[in-house]
Amino acid sequence: MKIPPVKGTRDFYPPDMAVHNCIVDGWKKVSLRNGFEEYDGPIFEYLKMFQIKSGDEIVEQLFSLTDRGGRDLALRPEMTPTLARMVNQQINSLPRPIKWFSVPRLFRAERPQKGRLREFFQWNIDIIGEDSVLADAEVIFTTIDYLREVGLSPQDIVVKVSSRKMLKGVMKSIGIPDEKIPPLYALLDKKNKLPFETFEKTLNDLIRDSKMANEVKEFVGCGDIRRIEEKYGHEGACDILELMALLQEMGVADYCVFDPGIVRGLAYYTGIVFEIYDKADELRAICGGGRYDNLLADFGGLAVSATGMGMGDCVLEILLREKGLLEEQLPRLELDYFVAYVDEQVKQNAIRLTMKLRSAGLAANFSYKAAKLGKQLKQASDQNARKCIIIGDEFKDGKLTIKDMATGEQKLVNYDEFLSGLGNGREEK
Amino acid sequence: MKIPPVKGTRDFYPPDMAVHNCIVDGWKKVSLRNGFEEYDGPIFEYLKMFQIKSGDEIVEQLFSLTDRGGRDLALRPEMTPTLARMVNQQINSLPRPIKWFSVPRLFRAERPQKGRLREFFQWNIDIIGEDSVLADAEVIFTTIDYLREVGLSPQDIVVKVSSRKMLKGVMKSIGIPDEKIPPLYALLDKKNKLPFETFEKTLNDLIRDSKMANEVKEFVGCGDIRRIEEKYGHEGACDILELMALLQEMGVADYCVFDPGIVRGLAYYTGIVFEIYDKADELRAICGGGRYDNLLADFGGLAVSATGMGMGDCVLEILLREKGLLEEQLPRLELDYFVAYVDEQVKQNAIRLTMKLRSAGLAANFSYKAAKLGKQLKQASDQNARKCIIIGDEFKDGKLTIKDMATGEQKLVNYDEFLSGLGNGREEK
Repeated sequence: MKIPPVKGTRDFYPPDMAVHNCIVDGWKKVSLRNGFEEYDGPIFEYLKMFQIKSGDEIVEQLFSLTDRGGRDLALRPEMTPTLARMVNQQINSLPRPIKWFSVPRLFRAERPQKGRLREFFQWNIDIIGEDSVLADAEVIFTTIDYLREVGLSPQDIVVKVSSRKMLKGVMKSIGIPDEKIPPLYALLDKKNKLPFETFEKTLNDLIRDSKMANEVKEFVGCGDIRRIEEKYGHEGACDILELMALLQEMGVADYCVFDPGIVRGLAYYTGIVFEIYDKADELRAICGGGRYDNLLADFGGLAVSATGMGMGDCVLEILLREKGLLEEQLPRLELDYFVAYVDEQVKQNAIRLTMKLRSAGLAANFSYKAAKLGKQLKQASDQNARKCIIIGDEFKDGKLTIKDMATGEQKLVNYDEFLSGLGNGREEK
Repeated sequence: MKIPPVKGTRDFYPPDMAVHNCIVDGWKKVSLRNGFEEYDGPIFEYLKMFQIKSGDEIVEQLFSLTDRGGRDLALRPEMTPTLARMVNQQINSLPRPIKWFSVPRLFRAERPQKGRLREFFQWNIDIIGEDSVLADAEVIFTTIDYLREVGLSPQDIVVKVSSRKMLKGVMKSIGIPDEKIPPLYALLDKKNKLPFETFEKTLNDLIRDSKMANEVKEFVGCGDIRRIEEKYGHEGACDILELMALLQEMGVADYCVFDPGIVRGLAYYTGIVFEIYDKADELRAICGGGRYDNLLADFGGLAVSATGMGMGDCVLEILLREKGLLEEQLPRLELDYFVAYVDEQVKQNAIRLTMKLRSAGLAANFSYKAAKLGKQLKQASDQNARKCIIIGDEFKDGKLTIKDMATGEQKLVNYDEFLSGLGNGREEK
């Protein structure tokens, strides 16, 4: 009986796993050097936890399940609710600012599309307990630090920043009534995915006041924060100005532009928001993030400010592949030694030697059969062995041949001496 | 609104995550040096996939869910079905033997107990396409190679080996009818968890022939494989004798004993089986494994032999903690530099310098506020910084102080020279 994998999930065969590990290791390395500590939580949580943050409509997009006690659970579609729960549990004992990162496996019960699967991984970084724009800037810096590390330049990607505080102020100035704010944000968030005519028509239908609608359009199209400051006042604009100055100081301003069209769909953002796109604008957002100062309180905790970012692995992998940046970074599986032997009579010596090498902390492999030497040397080469030890004719005189697989150079060594050198882990490598 | 985590799951706060990473990194390192390649599969699969291997009774122990298309899915309770599915898909293009490992996250809808949670991690290693006992021996060696690496000696743990082939032969010799074999195996598997009287009574009730029942009891209590060979013949016993000789050759025989009471609950084992226990016998099995030559065919593939092992993280962590072997192995979060500064006026220099350090690949952190120097030095020390850069009074002369946090030694360096040294990543470390 043959059973396929579930649609929208991935099998990671060793070559795929190497790609996956390369991405995850990069995320971890950059997080650590930026002073973030790793955490993780359970794959499933109480269903209602996700409803608190995203409302009932989220339920449709969740893989939900019921346990034997009849509890409603769901596979986590994002990490932030778990983060809020965990931080709230220990808020009094954690030194602030809390700088944490995680690489959770997440799930969305959606139709799979390019760059969007039902099971994926996401790099999350968050700074909690620090309300200055410096924290937002550090989140953006850390994100760019990774993308730059893997070879993406300002010619490849653009970081679009805006502010929900500013957006709120501007909408108020224009005179948009409160009840129209949420649908308007949802529309603005979709703007770049819609044909302009559709956007315009939906906007007019929503606002029902052509002067206001025009002002919104004009605002959204304005990339000059100084002009917005002049027109709508300093509040709101000032946090973007401060952010831009910090990103300049940090050496990453060449990646960043102000874009008032950046809203982030989720209702919970309160300050600086940002999204990163490929310059060719052919893919979904590479990542997104921003400030969410009310979330911990919404989860029953204290009013503690927070800002963070999430980057999925799917779009990133597509982009890295397109730019040819993936293959060169892949670490190849490597052996220190491959142990070859010419006949079954000395097989037990090959076994003993291989296990001695491994026990001494060296990566070593051997053939299960005394195949022809050429075939075993090919195995050694296929497995990227640096050296091949050959237990051959000279073994009856107590000698091994060691072949350097890169140079082809061979030398004879004394078996007993080689073995005893391994014992204390001080063998030549 | 406060919501707790789901019972039987774990929150990994940074100190817990460090322990978790330490265990997983050890598994990965030892797998790689033993020539295994990493793979992974989806968290959920079609429910029926798990029924193929373990029958309908497994459904009770699964977290099952239905997707929006009405498909019955389940969170994976073990990795082997996914492994069988993946290997079957590519059996013709994979060079054999296939030596793969994985560290899947697994789920069981059971009542949580000590060492047994509803969500856990499990190290899996498997060798596919090699039917010699050498493959079984290599699986056992690799498992011990890890346990020895983390400091567990033959005084701490014991590897109990047996053979399902031998067991089958012996049961046939004794005259146990075929239909009683499965319940008898299930009983033998539970033997060590039951009071002896209960075991004896259940055995007598099952066999209903006191001569046969006594023979079974005698066999199960016999730790001498030579005596079993004499009494029941060479077949079956011979693979254990070969295994023991190989484990001797591999240098791990001091961990291993023959124990005919080892059965492994699952019906699908066909040859060598083994389980590892703490010597004090206070915990559940640390791991278990064995040969399962029919599974790939059961999953719709070719008849390809296989042998493998699974080790969960929960019992292992308890044991390592009890033996005091965990704390010393934990890598501490470490910074190359902490950047301190004495007043807000030079804050932007501290920011610029910190980001330069990070961009150059160094782990660096800084204070969000120009707190008193003593407080910042404490922060540096709490974050295990090797060095602390102080932007102090001498900064107006273009100088930085660098303090070695281990020795307390301080020296003055030129700011511009230090910065330009970072540019090419060749800074002093």
